[in-house]
Amino acid sequence: MVTRLSNYFLRTLREDPSDAEVTSHRLLVRAGYIRRQAPGVFAWLPLGLRVKNKIEAIVREEMANAGAFEVHFPALLPREPYEVTGRWEEYGDALFRLHDRKGADYLLAPTHEEVFTLLVKDLYSSYKDLPLSIYQIQDKYRDEARPRAGLLRGREFTMKDAYSFDVSDAGLDASYQAQRDAYERIFTRLGLEYEIVQADAGAMGGSRSEEFLHPTAVGEDTFVRSAGGYAANVEAYTTEVPEARPIEGLAPATVFDSPNTPTISTLVDLANERHPRDDGRAWTAADTLKNVVLALQHLDGSRELVVIGLPGDRDVDLKRVEVAFSPAEVEAATEADFAANAGLVKGYIGPWSPQGPVLGEESATEIRYFLDPRVVDGTEWITGANVDQQHVFGLVAGRDFTADGFVEAAEVRAGDPAPDGSGPVELARGMEIGHVFQLGRKYAEALGLKVLDENGKLVTVTMGSYGIGITRILAIIAEGNNDERGLIWPKAVAPFDVHVVAAGRDAAIFEVAEELVASLEASGKDVLYDDRTGKVSPGVKFGDAELIGVPVVVVVGREATEGFVELWDRAAGTKDRVAIADLAL
Amino acid sequence: MVTRLSNYFLRTLREDPSDAEVTSHRLLVRAGYIRRQAPGVFAWLPLGLRVKNKIEAIVREEMANAGAFEVHFPALLPREPYEVTGRWEEYGDALFRLHDRKGADYLLAPTHEEVFTLLVKDLYSSYKDLPLSIYQIQDKYRDEARPRAGLLRGREFTMKDAYSFDVSDAGLDASYQAQRDAYERIFTRLGLEYEIVQADAGAMGGSRSEEFLHPTAVGEDTFVRSAGGYAANVEAYTTEVPEARPIEGLAPATVFDSPNTPTISTLVDLANERHPRDDGRAWTAADTLKNVVLALQHLDGSRELVVIGLPGDRDVDLKRVEVAFSPAEVEAATEADFAANAGLVKGYIGPWSPQGPVLGEESATEIRYFLDPRVVDGTEWITGANVDQQHVFGLVAGRDFTADGFVEAAEVRAGDPAPDGSGPVELARGMEIGHVFQLGRKYAEALGLKVLDENGKLVTVTMGSYGIGITRILAIIAEGNNDERGLIWPKAVAPFDVHVVAAGRDAAIFEVAEELVASLEASGKDVLYDDRTGKVSPGVKFGDAELIGVPVVVVVGREATEGFVELWDRAAGTKDRVAIADLAL
Repeated sequence: MVTRLSNYFLRTLREDPSDAEVTSHRLLVRAGYIRRQAPGVFAWLPLGLRVKNKIEAIVREEMANAGAFEVHFPALLPREPYEVTGRWEEYGDALFRLHDRKGADYLLAPTHEEVFTLLVKDLYSSYKDLPLSIYQIQDKYRDEARPRAGLLRGREFTMKDAYSFDVSDAGLDASYQAQRDAYERIFTRLGLEYEIVQADAGAMGGSRSEEFLHPTAVGEDTFVRSAGGYAANVEAYTTEVPEARPIEGLAPATVFDSPNTPTISTLVDLANERHPRDDGRAWTAADTLKNVVLALQHLDGSRELVVIGLPGDRDVDLKRVEVAFSPAEVEAATEADFAANAGLVKGYIGPWSPQGPVLGEESATEIRYFLDPRVVDGTEWITGANVDQQHVFGLVAGRDFTADGFVEAAEVRAGDPAPDGSGPVELARGMEIGHVFQLGRKYAEALGLKVLDENGKLVTVTMGSYGIGITRILAIIAEGNNDERGLIWPKAVAPFDVHVVAAGRDAAIFEVAEELVASLEASGKDVLYDDRTGKVSPGVKFGDAELIGVPVVVVVGREATEGFVELWDRAAGTKDRVAIADLAL
Repeated sequence: MVTRLSNYFLRTLREDPSDAEVTSHRLLVRAGYIRRQAPGVFAWLPLGLRVKNKIEAIVREEMANAGAFEVHFPALLPREPYEVTGRWEEYGDALFRLHDRKGADYLLAPTHEEVFTLLVKDLYSSYKDLPLSIYQIQDKYRDEARPRAGLLRGREFTMKDAYSFDVSDAGLDASYQAQRDAYERIFTRLGLEYEIVQADAGAMGGSRSEEFLHPTAVGEDTFVRSAGGYAANVEAYTTEVPEARPIEGLAPATVFDSPNTPTISTLVDLANERHPRDDGRAWTAADTLKNVVLALQHLDGSRELVVIGLPGDRDVDLKRVEVAFSPAEVEAATEADFAANAGLVKGYIGPWSPQGPVLGEESATEIRYFLDPRVVDGTEWITGANVDQQHVFGLVAGRDFTADGFVEAAEVRAGDPAPDGSGPVELARGMEIGHVFQLGRKYAEALGLKVLDENGKLVTVTMGSYGIGITRILAIIAEGNNDERGLIWPKAVAPFDVHVVAAGRDAAIFEVAEELVASLEASGKDVLYDDRTGKVSPGVKFGDAELIGVPVVVVVGREATEGFVELWDRAAGTKDRVAIADLAL
């Protein structure tokens, strides 16, 4: 096929869009690939659709290779199945909800676990029908609080979501592995660097959850990896728990006055001044216990304050805390929260117990108290006394205070040990491009998906869920393949195989270009042909070619009549004079 | 590609779905093509998706041949552009409306005129950029009051919608013709019989609107056609208006008592008994003027009663009336409407004037009165006197009563004259499969789409809109291609090229079948291979083959080892013994 720029639906823009925060957004809009319709909602222009279709074709091929069959669900779905699994509520404001003319509730599906489960329940009834993997490539909706970065975090996006159905755990493992392998093939074909990282602690019945992250400085996910092969999302990182120490023989705690000491650093200074250590080493923030007040916003609308104690040299990582308290949303306590809870003495908060603040005035306010896993029994801490202007030395975990539980609340830092013993971790940033997840029997149980096993007994099916963000991948490829002049697509997803530019005004040049284009088409190439005449200068044409980013450009110019063209490799930035007869594209 | 039934995601059903009203719905569900998710909302299973993809591919090819470029818009769109054109209101309950977490209004687009207009406005500015035709294939939403007949009238459906943009009327005509020609090619390739019918009176500035109807008894559209080539939707049919007659010399009207005469037929009987015609011919219903009270439901929520007078031998066609009063909705007046308007004497209603009922008691109720175009000045009528138990003879149009206007309210009947003089029309039923429509400058004006013309002057662009219902077409093809045993797809859209059935238990049969399937695959065929073993009998396999409806079935049975198979033509119903070596598919 030959597409002629003279009548193609394309307008490249000289100016960056004012709302573009990232390179991919900026270039995809300027080069005429996408166009904004509403916050986080885009229309696909012809060039963009071509690249999207190429990515989808690769995904489809590898899904077929993985034995998955394609289906297609509507975006508009009834409330009921999502009500049964609790997701109608859990999704909170991120779910687009609506009702029809009869008042029945509907949603725009953010993912389709429920209806895939019901479809299989509807049609299949025997272990003989399984294993089964089915998928769709479909437009999804999430009402993001802050849609941004163009396609990287939109409110409408195209996703490939696959679901596997098995009778046994071993079957699920095999289905999971088939999808995981397909993902590796897909990202390799797309030329997309990726890291496979653990996406949760794996503590829940051995089910696996892994994310494919594309390492990039603009990524919104932080992950850790060790030289020994450990890799995990920071939300999934688990702290190495030290052994408990003997409590017997430890000195009693002493409360001391600490005016104007509301921060960890002022507390450390005061401690070194007033109570220098016997061995002469200075106290550091790691010797203090920081107590942070957080507010949990529960699904039922209630707001609960909790206090979390962690070593003073670490900050709380709210994303990690959210995993621990999911599906509640977590935020820092507000001034109003402190004002409403007299027992919470800001700057002087210490451990807390069901009876109220440890050491401080007893208070009627019941606040749950959680500890970082490092705060094991027998550890001694300098911390707040829950009394204004007072702190305490030598408060011993397990003797002077206990907790309602332990949470992974502290930030992960470079140098922290990998939980599998494979050495210290380093931190990196990435963008999620895929997720493979063993759902296990959660959805099948909730929705009653059972089949008869070999013995004629009803068993609940075990499932996996596997997602790839098609439109996000497109943006990430654009993000990683450009220069200051425009996009430079990898061949596998370029909108055209070759971009031929007729550079000049002579009719002879256009004649040669037409011949060349015809022969390229005959050899099966998909050609973009810049056949514009009139006032469109070669400079404008070259600028457009750079912006659009077809990796192979052939410039038909002055030497065309002598049988020579220029072969321009956008990625390498080289331009070679080549005899037309020798052109091998 | 070879798809093996032993592990394909397919379950054919023995029972018809309980909610299936039409054959296509029944068979598409039973054969495993689609599955219902909510009223009028379906999921596409692998077989269905294959057929849908084939239809879409044909549409895409012909759109490219027509010079149209593909884009893709989201289903979720902001309210504003639809507010500007009035469609946010006009669509009434048929529009799915929702709002995001910030309270901004959105809709699920039923069609995309507004955003296509804005896209072109956004990117183009000169006559040199035009003409332009762009299209998408996209899932649309309409909250139908009565979703039914499976895919034939769903609430979610896939549509190809194209839009053309031109500077001149002649340009629009050319763009319109290109789409119209493409539609003819598409329906021909799909093997779909069609009639092109006028879809409105064409009175609005010469703009054209034509529907492609597939003639079928289950069609919900009625159209008329003459032997001379006229064809129109009944809503677009225009009545031949007789010449006015002289009023002078006509006898004065006479009111007469007519107890218990609430219907046209009792009125005709009474007239023939009391006032026989001078020339001896009997009065018929055509001599009476029937006055029908209708209620208009306006967009602003108000309800207005109107009276329509038409010859007593014709019924009102509400669909035709709705076109006349669009965008108001029209329904018959209710008992409550009559009760609230004392002047309306049910069964005795006559012409009405702004001052109140003609002849009857004067009333404060202002009701607009409309006439069928046949009721020209000088025609004499037997009609109601607007007084209980009284009618009137010889009431003369233009002398005794006038109207607020004329409306095409009467039903069209076989034998009525075609308005273009091409002879009497016959009525037929059809299903809309495409619509080509010259929008003219309506949307461009509302949304400010102007370009500079050759003289540097801003001119408003003129547009066309062209739709094809992809999923509806699929259902219509299924509706027209089946027998009592199942579907029989035309080759152009069949889910597979050939369906190979291994019929028997001998390993030798499967060996031959495997070889055959491999050679078919090597020759580029897309093969469905029924390789099921175990308890699946040949009878079950044949039944599934019939239900699924691949038009070419090859049965590999007992004679396979001798080199023979059975070639089964599903459409012809023939089964021929063929040497494998001679198989030409």
